Amino acid sequence: MSHNTFGHLFRVTSFGESHGQAIGGVIDGCPPNIAFRLEDVQGALDKRRPGQSRFTTQRREPDEVKILSGVLPGEDGVLVTTGTPIALLIENVDQRSKDYSEIAASYRPGHADYAYDVKYGIRDYRGGGRSSARETAVRVAAGAIARKVLPGVTVRGALVRMGEIAIDRSKWDWDEIDRNPFFCPDADAAAKMEAYLDGIRKAGSSVGAVIEVVAEGVPPGLGAPIYGKLDAELAAALMSINAVKGVEIGEGFEAATLTGEANADEMRMGNDGRPIFLANHAGGILGGISTGQPVVARFAVKPTSSILTPRRTVTRHGEDAEIITKGRHDPCVGIRAVPVGEAMVACVLADHLLRQRGQVGEPVEWPFRK
Amino acid sequence: MSHNTFGHLFRVTSFGESHGQAIGGVIDGCPPNIAFRLEDVQGALDKRRPGQSRFTTQRREPDEVKILSGVLPGEDGVLVTTGTPIALLIENVDQRSKDYSEIAASYRPGHADYAYDVKYGIRDYRGGGRSSARETAVRVAAGAIARKVLPGVTVRGALVRMGEIAIDRSKWDWDEIDRNPFFCPDADAAAKMEAYLDGIRKAGSSVGAVIEVVAEGVPPGLGAPIYGKLDAELAAALMSINAVKGVEIGEGFEAATLTGEANADEMRMGNDGRPIFLANHAGGILGGISTGQPVVARFAVKPTSSILTPRRTVTRHGEDAEIITKGRHDPCVGIRAVPVGEAMVACVLADHLLRQRGQVGEPVEWPFRK
Amino acid sequence: MSHNTFGHLFRVTSFGESHGQAIGGVIDGCPPNIAFRLEDVQGALDKRRPGQSRFTTQRREPDEVKILSGVLPGEDGVLVTTGTPIALLIENVDQRSKDYSEIAASYRPGHADYAYDVKYGIRDYRGGGRSSARETAVRVAAGAIARKVLPGVTVRGALVRMGEIAIDRSKWDWDEIDRNPFFCPDADAAAKMEAYLDGIRKAGSSVGAVIEVVAEGVPPGLGAPIYGKLDAELAAALMSINAVKGVEIGEGFEAATLTGEANADEMRMGNDGRPIFLANHAGGILGGISTGQPVVARFAVKPTSSILTPRRTVTRHGEDAEIITKGRHDPCVGIRAVPVGEAMVACVLADHLLRQRGQVGEPVEWPFRK
Amino acid sequence: MSHNTFGHLFRVTSFGESHGQAIGGVIDGCPPNIAFRLEDVQGALDKRRPGQSRFTTQRREPDEVKILSGVLPGEDGVLVTTGTPIALLIENVDQRSKDYSEIAASYRPGHADYAYDVKYGIRDYRGGGRSSARETAVRVAAGAIARKVLPGVTVRGALVRMGEIAIDRSKWDWDEIDRNPFFCPDADAAAKMEAYLDGIRKAGSSVGAVIEVVAEGVPPGLGAPIYGKLDAELAAALMSINAVKGVEIGEGFEAATLTGEANADEMRMGNDGRPIFLANHAGGILGGISTGQPVVARFAVKPTSSILTPRRTVTRHGEDAEIITKGRHDPCVGIRAVPVGEAMVACVLADHLLRQRGQVGEPVEWPFRK
Repeated sequence: MSHNTFGHLFRVTSFGESHGQAIGGVIDGCPPNIAFRLEDVQGALDKRRPGQSRFTTQRREPDEVKILSGVLPGEDGVLVTTGTPIALLIENVDQRSKDYSEIAASYRPGHADYAYDVKYGIRDYRGGGRSSARETAVRVAAGAIARKVLPGVTVRGALVRMGEIAIDRSKWDWDEIDRNPFFCPDADAAAKMEAYLDGIRKAGSSVGAVIEVVAEGVPPGLGAPIYGKLDAELAAALMSINAVKGVEIGEGFEAATLTGEANADEMRMGNDGRPIFLANHAGGILGGISTGQPVVARFAVKPTSSILTPRRTVTRHGEDAEIITKGRHDPCVGIRAVPVGEAMVACVLADHLLRQRGQVGEPVEWPFRK
Repeated sequence: MSHNTFGHLFRVTSFGESHGQAIGGVIDGCPPNIAFRLEDVQGALDKRRPGQSRFTTQRREPDEVKILSGVLPGEDGVLVTTGTPIALLIENVDQRSKDYSEIAASYRPGHADYAYDVKYGIRDYRGGGRSSARETAVRVAAGAIARKVLPGVTVRGALVRMGEIAIDRSKWDWDEIDRNPFFCPDADAAAKMEAYLDGIRKAGSSVGAVIEVVAEGVPPGLGAPIYGKLDAELAAALMSINAVKGVEIGEGFEAATLTGEANADEMRMGNDGRPIFLANHAGGILGGISTGQPVVARFAVKPTSSILTPRRTVTRHGEDAEIITKGRHDPCVGIRAVPVGEAMVACVLADHLLRQRGQVGEPVEWPFRK
Repeated sequence: MSHNTFGHLFRVTSFGESHGQAIGGVIDGCPPNIAFRLEDVQGALDKRRPGQSRFTTQRREPDEVKILSGVLPGEDGVLVTTGTPIALLIENVDQRSKDYSEIAASYRPGHADYAYDVKYGIRDYRGGGRSSARETAVRVAAGAIARKVLPGVTVRGALVRMGEIAIDRSKWDWDEIDRNPFFCPDADAAAKMEAYLDGIRKAGSSVGAVIEVVAEGVPPGLGAPIYGKLDAELAAALMSINAVKGVEIGEGFEAATLTGEANADEMRMGNDGRPIFLANHAGGILGGISTGQPVVARFAVKPTSSILTPRRTVTRHGEDAEIITKGRHDPCVGIRAVPVGEAMVACVLADHLLRQRGQVGEPVEWPFRK
Repeated sequence: MSHNTFGHLFRVTSFGESHGQAIGGVIDGCPPNIAFRLEDVQGALDKRRPGQSRFTTQRREPDEVKILSGVLPGEDGVLVTTGTPIALLIENVDQRSKDYSEIAASYRPGHADYAYDVKYGIRDYRGGGRSSARETAVRVAAGAIARKVLPGVTVRGALVRMGEIAIDRSKWDWDEIDRNPFFCPDADAAAKMEAYLDGIRKAGSSVGAVIEVVAEGVPPGLGAPIYGKLDAELAAALMSINAVKGVEIGEGFEAATLTGEANADEMRMGNDGRPIFLANHAGGILGGISTGQPVVARFAVKPTSSILTPRRTVTRHGEDAEIITKGRHDPCVGIRAVPVGEAMVACVLADHLLRQRGQVGEPVEWPFRK
C-alpha cells in the first residue's frame, strides 16, 4: 500500500482534490472478461452521493462516472473488462470555493489542515484539498467493479450507532437499510436517529457513528498468516476512510473481556459434509485467513469537524484566532461512509482472491471430506 | 505490505515457524551509520520472552538474537548500520513438538488450524506453524532497531484492560509498568489482575486484554492524506499481531458517541512560537498525518484459544471430535503483546519518517512562525 | 514495478488503449512545491507526436495534455505541485478503427496480438489495444515532470543507428539533433538516413534503430548494490518501451570483449578537490550506484512489424492466412522512441533521487576531501 | 523491485556481505506442496561455487545451504513447501579479510567502492561488502526452488563469447556445457578459450563474456503489455547481476539492423492444432508477453575489475594513488555468471506464472482451435 494506491493484484490508484477539475482513479490488475454495466458503478456512486436527504451535505455533485479505458463494449450495454487498467473519471461540478475563502488563513480544528501544511508546505484550504472525503467516490466506483470479481459474495454495510443511539441487534433487518436515510437496519433506531440528527443539524453541530460491514459467501483461505493478514488489510482499508478512528473484526474490543471458552467458535460437521462453526466471534477470520463464515468488520467514524460553534485555533501566520466552519457539511459523515466501507471491503476481498489464486491456485471445495 | 513483509522504505521481512529450526527476519532500507548495541535488541526481546513469570507460557526459549549482516563493528561494542540488509536470526531451542501430537488430526477452535489447512492444504499442527505468536519475536527485534532511526521519539506500551479489569487512567504511572508482570500502568489494577489471572490460569482458561501504545516526540508531517495514512498503516501493523481483533487511534470508538464540539482539538500559539493543541482526541493524527502531538493507539487482544476445557471440533477427516489443548500457553497472551505493539508502532513511524524525507525532505521546524 | 506502474517513490501509473476514449496516467509521490509550466509537458509531447514529418505515422493526434489534479496555479501561468497525485489526461482524437477491420481475425506477425489473445482471451485488434506505442505519450508527459525533480540534471537522447547506417561518434553534435527529423547527432549520417528511410518507406517496409540517452549532472550515490541497482531499473524502464529488444549501459556488449585493464575507469583528484574519472566505460554506474559521471544508456528498437509485404500468419479460428498490415505506421519507430527513452531515464533518476534521500538523506558533496 | 527484494508473487529478499558471518535470503510467496530435495539446491550452488577449476577464484567456500523454514519433511528426504517463507542460509567460511587490508584506503577502479562510499558514507573494503558477487549464491539457491514452480520448463545457460572468442552457433551442443569449465556449448571454441584464458590469468588480467539463457516450455501468456513486461523484468533481473552491462532478448541489438520483413516471425497452424512460429527473432516474447516459443535472453559481463596491473586511483583522503588488486579473483567472472543468469530467469518466470494465474487463472491450452 503506497501513498495513493491500495491493493496488490487488484490495485486502485486514486487522484484528485475536492476543488480541482476532477477526481478519478485507475484499477489495475482486474481480471479480463468480467462483465458489468455502467449502471452498476453509477448506482453505487448514487448511494454515496451528497444531497440526497437533509442529513447530508447540500453540495450538489452529480458524481457522473466515465470509464476511459480497460473495457470493451459487449452486448446490450454490457462492458467487458480487458485485463488492462480501468480508468475512472468523475468531474467536479459544484465547487464553490468562495465558501472557503474566509478560512484560508486559519487551521480548522479536527481537520487535516495544520498537519497537511506542515507536511507539504502547502495550504490547500479549498475543501481540504486531497484530504476531502470527496475522494471516497473513487473508492465506491472501484468497489462496484471489485464486487464483480467476487461471484457469490455479498458485501453489505449498515450504520449500527449514531452518537448516543445504538441499534438493537435483535431487530436487525437488512431490508430496512434502504428504507431510511441512515442505512440503519433497525427501524425503531432509525426513527430515533431522525429526530436526534435533526437536532444536531439545526444546532450546527455534528455527531459520530459506527458502521458494520458484513461479507457473506467469502471462500475460506483468503489472507495470509502474517503481515498480509486479511484482517490487517481490512483494518488498513477501513482506517484509511476519512474520519475513521477505530476498526474491529468480529467481537473486536469485546473480545478483550471474554474468556477463551466464550470466545472460541466451536465446530461440527455439517449436513453437506463440510465443517460448520457454531458461532462467529472471530468475524470470519482466524489467524489472518478467512474461514468461510461471514466476514464482519466494524469501524468508528468521528463527528464531522466542520461545525458552526466558534472554536479556538491559530492562523498560518502564528496568531490566535477563532473559527466557524460555514459551508455545506454533513451533520453525520458516518452515514455516507456506509457505501464507502462496503467498497473498501469488496476491494480487499477481490485483491485477496486473486492473491490466493496466484500463490495456491483456484479455491477448492473443502478437500478433506470423507 | 506483501505477505511476509511490512513497510516501504524501512522494510521488515520475517520467516520461521514455531517448531522449525529458527525464526528471523531481514530489515531492508535502514539508513546507514545508525549506531546501536546488540543489547538494545536483546533487551527488547527479553521483555517479550516467555517464561518470565507464572503468567506467561512456560516454554523456555532464550530468544538469543544474532545479527548476520548489515552492520560493522564500531568502538566499545557498538554496531553501526551500513545501509544494507540487516539479517536477524533467533534459533528455536525448546520445541517439544510431542506436546502437539495428539491434536494433529483435530482443528483447535479459535486457532488458525482450519483456515490454514483449507488455504494451503497443509496441516502444520506443531505449535501453529507460521501462525504461532513466536514470530512476534522478530518484530520486537526489528522494532528495537527502528527506534534508533527515530531520534527524540519515545514509544511505550501499557496494558490498560485485562478481561473484566480496566485501569483507572487517573492513576497512570509509566514507571509502574516495569514493576508488575502485566506492563500495567496502574498499581491498584495490577494487584487485582494478579489475583484475577491466577484464577483464570488455574482454571485452565484464558482472558483477553487491551493494550495502549503511546509515541511521543513524533515530528509532524508523517503519513499521507489517503491510503498511506499513518493511522491506516498503524491499524494494519497492530491488527497483524496475533490474536488482535480491534484497533483504535485517539478516542477510537468513543469518537462515535461524541459531537463535533467535544471531539475537535482546539489550538493556541504556544510560548515557543509553535502551535499547541488543547486536547488530543485525535491521538496525534489528523487526516492521516501526524500533528506533533503524542500518537496514541490501542488494540484488543482476544483470549488465548488454547484452553483446558473440552471444546467441540472436527477432525481433518471430517469427523466430530472433542479437544483439550494441553501444552504450555499464556493465560493472557495480551501481556506479551505489549512489547510487540511498541515494536510495530516504532517500525511504522521509522518507515514514515524515511518516506516523508524521501518525498519532501528533512522534517523542518514549523515554518510559519512569526 | 507492478503491471501498469513503475517507480517506487516517484511512481507513474498509466492507462488507456490506442482506440479508447483517452490515455493518461497518475504520477504519485512527486515532491511538493515543484514549479513547472504546462508548456514544459506539452513541449515534450510535441517531440514525440506523430505526423511531424513524412517519416512518422500520419495518424493525426494533437496529444493535448490536461492536468486534472496535484497542482495549484502559481504566478505567471506557473503550476506548483502539491505533493498529491498528478493526473494527466490525453484524449484520443484520430482513432479511425475502420483501418483495422480487415485484420480482426488474423494475428499480425511481430505484434503482440497472439500473445495478448492467449493471455487475456481478448482480441483488441484496434491498433493493438494496450500494446500500442500510443501509451508512450504518458511516459513522455511524466518524464517532463520528472526532469523538474532533478535540478542540475540534463537528460538528452539521440538516434545513433538506423538499420545499416550508424553514426560516426567523432561527429557527435548535440545541437544537430534538432535539425533533422531523426534526432541524429551526426549531420552526415542524418543525410544518409533520409535517403535510406525514404526507400524503406516507399517499399512499405520498416527498419530498426539504436538510441542513446545521456544524463549529465546526476549526483553520485543513486541506486543500490543489489536488486534496486540504478542500471537494473534503467534496463527495465527502457526494455519496457514498445519494440525494444536490447539495453546497454556504458560499454555494454563491447565490455565482453575487453580486458580488465581496458575497461576499468582510472581516477585522479580533480582541481576542485573531488575525484575525477579518466574514462567512462562504466556509463556512470558502478555496482549499481551512480558515480557522478554521465549516465549513458543505449537501447535497440526493432523494425515496425506493420509492413505492406504479405506475411504468413494464422487466424483466431485456427486457419492459415496471409496478412498485409495497412494503416498508418512509422517506417522507423525508433525515431519517436528518442523522447520516450529520455523520459524513462528521467523518471528512473527522479525515483532514485527520492529513494536515496529517504534512506540516507540529502545528497552531499564528496565528504572526504582534504 | 525494492532495494534487496525482487519479484512480486514469487519474491526473493537477500542479505549478507562478502566478509560477514553469512549470506542468505527469504523466498516469500512460493506455492505450497512443491516437492524438492536439498540436493537440488545444493547442486545448483555447486555449479556456481568458486574454486572448481583454475579459471575461477581460489577462495574456498563450501557454500553449504541450510533451509531454516517454509518446508516440512516428506518421504525419502523430500522437502515439501508449506507456502510460508523459505529462509536460506549460507555461512561464510573462507573470509581472509587480511587480503584486503592494504587497499582499505584506495578506491579500486571499476569497482563499486567509490560510489558505495559516497552513497552510504561507509567504506566496506572487505571484498566489496554488499557489492560482492558472493551474493549471487542466494539467487542460485532461490532459482533452484523457482524451477520447481515451473513444471515442464527447462532453463539452461551457456557462455557464447569470452573476450575475442565467440562460439560458432552451428556447433551448439547443450551436452557440451558440462564437459568444459566454461559452460560453453561449442567444443572447439571451448578449447580455444582454455588457452586464451590461461594467458589472461597468468598475466594477472581479466576478460569479459556473453551469456545466453534459454527457457523452453514457457507457457504463452506470461508478462503484461506495459511496465510488467516479461522482457522488462528479465532485463532488470539480468542487469542486476554483478558486472553485467547489457541485456538482449531474441535478436537484441541485431534487430536494429533488420527490416520488418526479416524480423517478424511468421506463423502457421501446427499439426497439433496449435499455431507455430516459423522463426524466433522475438526471443519468445512479443509485446512483453510470452508466445510459447523458447525465451532467449543474453547478457554481457564486463571483465573482472580486480587485476594485477597497477591502475591510477585516489584514496578516501583525497590523494592520488596507484593500486594493484591482489587477492583471489576470477579471470573471467562471466563463467560463474552462467548459473546465476539461469537462476534469475527461473525466478522471473516463476513470478510471472503466479501473477498470470492470479489475474487471469490457470494457463489454458490455446482456446481457439477448430
